[in-house]
Amino acid sequence: MALNFPIKRTTPKKIINKANLGMDLEGIINESNEYYLNNDIAVIHKKPTPVQIVKVDYPMRSKAVITEAYYKTPSTTDYNGIYRGKYIDFEAKENHNKTAFPLANIHPHQIEHLKAITKHGGIGFLIMSWSKFDEYYLVPLNLVLRYWDDAILNDGRKSIPYEAIKKEAYPIKEGYLPRLNYLKVVDEIYFKE
Amino acid sequence: MALNFPIKRTTPKKIINKANLGMDLEGIINESNEYYLNNDIAVIHKKPTPVQIVKVDYPMRSKAVITEAYYKTPSTTDYNGIYRGKYIDFEAKENHNKTAFPLANIHPHQIEHLKAITKHGGIGFLIMSWSKFDEYYLVPLNLVLRYWDDAILNDGRKSIPYEAIKKEAYPIKEGYLPRLNYLKVVDEIYFKE
Repeated sequence: MALNFPIKRTTPKKIINKANLGMDLEGIINESNEYYLNNDIAVIHKKPTPVQIVKVDYPMRSKAVITEAYYKTPSTTDYNGIYRGKYIDFEAKENHNKTAFPLANIHPHQIEHLKAITKHGGIGFLIMSWSKFDEYYLVPLNLVLRYWDDAILNDGRKSIPYEAIKKEAYPIKEGYLPRLNYLKVVDEIYFKE
Repeated sequence: MALNFPIKRTTPKKIINKANLGMDLEGIINESNEYYLNNDIAVIHKKPTPVQIVKVDYPMRSKAVITEAYYKTPSTTDYNGIYRGKYIDFEAKENHNKTAFPLANIHPHQIEHLKAITKHGGIGFLIMSWSKFDEYYLVPLNLVLRYWDDAILNDGRKSIPYEAIKKEAYPIKEGYLPRLNYLKVVDEIYFKE
């Protein structure tokens, strides 16, 4: 039927897919958070990129220009906020490999941070994208820690295999509004009755 | 007795006072948060200053240099984290006036953010310093909102008078470790039985 009305081919579905091309994990999560915020579901923000500012110019009649600055290693995770009265904290990681997620992609202090958060009663996890398969997963901290500790304490493998993610992490389906409804998965894992 | 041992004059109290000279509110809060973190009391961090990065150079054999960037208006508050299982969120404001705190020092979206936080079950407030009196206060969101709404809805006064702070906000005493034990005041206000 659509063939008779070529204009109809531009369905919302198609627009989304086109818009998604080139949108990275951060962009997709930011959009989802905006949806959550506008619909009063949760208040979750990305923290600004930490920058060490060295030189600032104040040109006359215009705003301050930072002319020398350096990227700093973040001391926490990228995202935090509140959902259903609980403190939520996570790191977003893109993975372009096919077989495993290298643990070197996570900073040790991010692991320490997530451990501290969990200890104090918060919810901590990773959101991982597997670009080769167009898949997204919520990876609970425990799963990460198992591989992390094994790598450090037992000189074990330095990555999390795709099969472990497939088997033990929670898939997040890509959708329309929000793009990545990861809080639905949070519901299932952390708020189940 | 101390007179016999001149070296003893350098009491911890004195060291603190000297060290505090020139330390701004942000520095004092950051130190306190470090204490809370190291002693496993709470996980509260300052968010990085939001910066719009325009140009980055990659000199050979050295790290990336940001050569053009601009300060952005923050969309949330400066500090957030978790304490006793609750989401905590606040903005730190220095006030160098003697009679009132100008509401213009707060961004409207910071107020909106704190309102959303409270609505979702978090704890939101301001920490205000009055440099002329060497005083610190925890100012609950409700007190701020009363003046904020009155200013906007009824074209009321555009500041919070010192007397109102003195009477209705909660003083935070400056101490040694941590410098500013604001979580003690949080206990009294938000966790009282």
